[in-house]
Amino acid sequence: MKAALLGYGTVGKGVDAIWKAEGLKDPELTKILVRRKEAMEDERFTLDFDSIISDENINAVIEAMGGEEPAYSYVKESLEAGKHVISANKKMLARHMDLFETAEKHNVKLLIEASCGGGIPWFSNMESLRRSDHIESFKAIMNGTSNFILSSVFEEGRSFDDALEQAKKLGYAEADPSDDLCGYDVSFKTVLSIYKAFDRMIDVSEMAVFGIEHLGKEVIDFARSKGRIIKLIGQASLKEEKLEACVLPAFVKDDDLFAKVSGNFNIFECECKHLGKLHFIGQGAGSYPTGQAIVQDLLDLRDQRSYYRRESKKAKLNNEKQGTYYIRGNCDALKDLIEERIDERRFLSKRIELKQLIDHRKDIDFIATYED
Amino acid sequence: MKAALLGYGTVGKGVDAIWKAEGLKDPELTKILVRRKEAMEDERFTLDFDSIISDENINAVIEAMGGEEPAYSYVKESLEAGKHVISANKKMLARHMDLFETAEKHNVKLLIEASCGGGIPWFSNMESLRRSDHIESFKAIMNGTSNFILSSVFEEGRSFDDALEQAKKLGYAEADPSDDLCGYDVSFKTVLSIYKAFDRMIDVSEMAVFGIEHLGKEVIDFARSKGRIIKLIGQASLKEEKLEACVLPAFVKDDDLFAKVSGNFNIFECECKHLGKLHFIGQGAGSYPTGQAIVQDLLDLRDQRSYYRRESKKAKLNNEKQGTYYIRGNCDALKDLIEERIDERRFLSKRIELKQLIDHRKDIDFIATYED
Repeated sequence: MKAALLGYGTVGKGVDAIWKAEGLKDPELTKILVRRKEAMEDERFTLDFDSIISDENINAVIEAMGGEEPAYSYVKESLEAGKHVISANKKMLARHMDLFETAEKHNVKLLIEASCGGGIPWFSNMESLRRSDHIESFKAIMNGTSNFILSSVFEEGRSFDDALEQAKKLGYAEADPSDDLCGYDVSFKTVLSIYKAFDRMIDVSEMAVFGIEHLGKEVIDFARSKGRIIKLIGQASLKEEKLEACVLPAFVKDDDLFAKVSGNFNIFECECKHLGKLHFIGQGAGSYPTGQAIVQDLLDLRDQRSYYRRESKKAKLNNEKQGTYYIRGNCDALKDLIEERIDERRFLSKRIELKQLIDHRKDIDFIATYED
Repeated sequence: MKAALLGYGTVGKGVDAIWKAEGLKDPELTKILVRRKEAMEDERFTLDFDSIISDENINAVIEAMGGEEPAYSYVKESLEAGKHVISANKKMLARHMDLFETAEKHNVKLLIEASCGGGIPWFSNMESLRRSDHIESFKAIMNGTSNFILSSVFEEGRSFDDALEQAKKLGYAEADPSDDLCGYDVSFKTVLSIYKAFDRMIDVSEMAVFGIEHLGKEVIDFARSKGRIIKLIGQASLKEEKLEACVLPAFVKDDDLFAKVSGNFNIFECECKHLGKLHFIGQGAGSYPTGQAIVQDLLDLRDQRSYYRRESKKAKLNNEKQGTYYIRGNCDALKDLIEERIDERRFLSKRIELKQLIDHRKDIDFIATYED
């Protein structure tokens, strides 16, 4: 087996480094697509994607470029050319679920372990489990940047702005951190996890998605006064054909398992019919953890590992899941939701449905789940 | 593929129930060895092991009997007859590591996921990971009975005796709970985990193994005064060819992840060269979780899942790992180990090696790791 790598940034270099460190020979990494040939010449480097797509010896393509284009086109072309694809690109994948259909049509695999949870074998464990069990729900901390910031705030007592600045300095947050802070990154991973857990393909724009970008001192103080901390959580459930999913900050009790997952670590919890609750915790990002997830996918291809056979279908979110929420926003516009007023701009809500949050999105400045 | 089930107790019934609930057809469960034909006649029941061993259509045997004999003989005969074996019997397996050699010699698999951690896919994840990573160490809470008792004591404020009584009433502890309380059960699981993590086969009698059977009120009070709780932990590491392993109660900080794993839940932590730390948490015992682990092993056989290729070898424990300990015992005999005396019978130790604990086993009434 031979493989090509698209992209030689953090993740691509991690894959190459693990491959070399472990002395792996099969598949052989024969070509690496780079943007410009770097000073340290490597004979595998190429600037020409066509030389990869037309190489009949290459059976697998690893997309580690990031961004939507040309990643999407390259993945699609590779699948159509009968090559297996491994991708870490959650944003592109979640917005282009048609790629899974393309893979099926051309009888090749589209493997995406690295797209969600870094090195945590979240998807591969679901694939195994689902052969003899049913996942009823999952919830997870799956964004390292926001979790790093929340840990800095709640464990080290920094202000939100300080914590964000520190995350940027340490390379945990990008110059424009909105995908991480506003919950979009978590929403992409939730969409992909729903596909793996329930075989449902949903439109991410239908989901209630809120982030921590407007976390303020008064929220932090409120959480502390209640013996809680805030975590950004993506979750979903499928019960009696009703699919629920959302991304929301949540007040988590100090002694909850989720409260103990700090910094760039992720936690995935799934509740199964036979097995009960299972948790997986590990590093959710980074060159080696993410690289390792890609390497594991490659080895599964090599070892012809069989997968749970899914019949996936497009699905609508129900958005009737109920909860009570801490909300800061335009209280006049939100007055029907108020249970207990905290001050002019803040209140605890009645027990309301996700669709009410979606309807009032523009009036909500910050929201966090108070009771599920 | 056809399979036979030996034993129809808690675990055996769990396997059968999951198989039926999921409508699984391959492999077919054609024979079930029982001790006496039960009132509810099932045409698969047999009293005769020979009818299984001589049945050439049966490719796999599931040993869910427990106990050392006849389980060991049946497993050995099955392997020698060229049948794959799945076993949940940690005590028998840990004491008869020769069975792995028998399996290899006859070119069949001996699969043991259910022997350690109930439904947690601990061994299967190590098998996958080790294709491209190295496990450097692991530590785990892996006995549900003792963890249930410790949770009752530290979270609900019961006395040790009350907690043990309650565990017996609820069916979590057996009439003779010494395997669970004295750390033996954890030592068996540690031996099997060492085999899976490091390919080393060790003699369990060389290991420092201490339990919670003499946990007393003064230990509980001491732990509380230090903001800690006690957990029973099995652990091992392999660094520069030095293999260390032990089973010891430990003072765990209140806010540690391990402190949040309560009741019959287990946690497994492994530290990998590339991937860093990974944690798995789930139910460590019970009909369905353990049954599910066996079913997963069966499906791996059916799916011809490939495994990490190990070259295992017999190994000696180093027992030079250092730590400081809280010890209750014969202080005269232990005087060389004392750093700080608490009272006539209790002290905090100097930094000492595991071999010193083994040498002084008879003088030690209760011991717990204070600092690793």
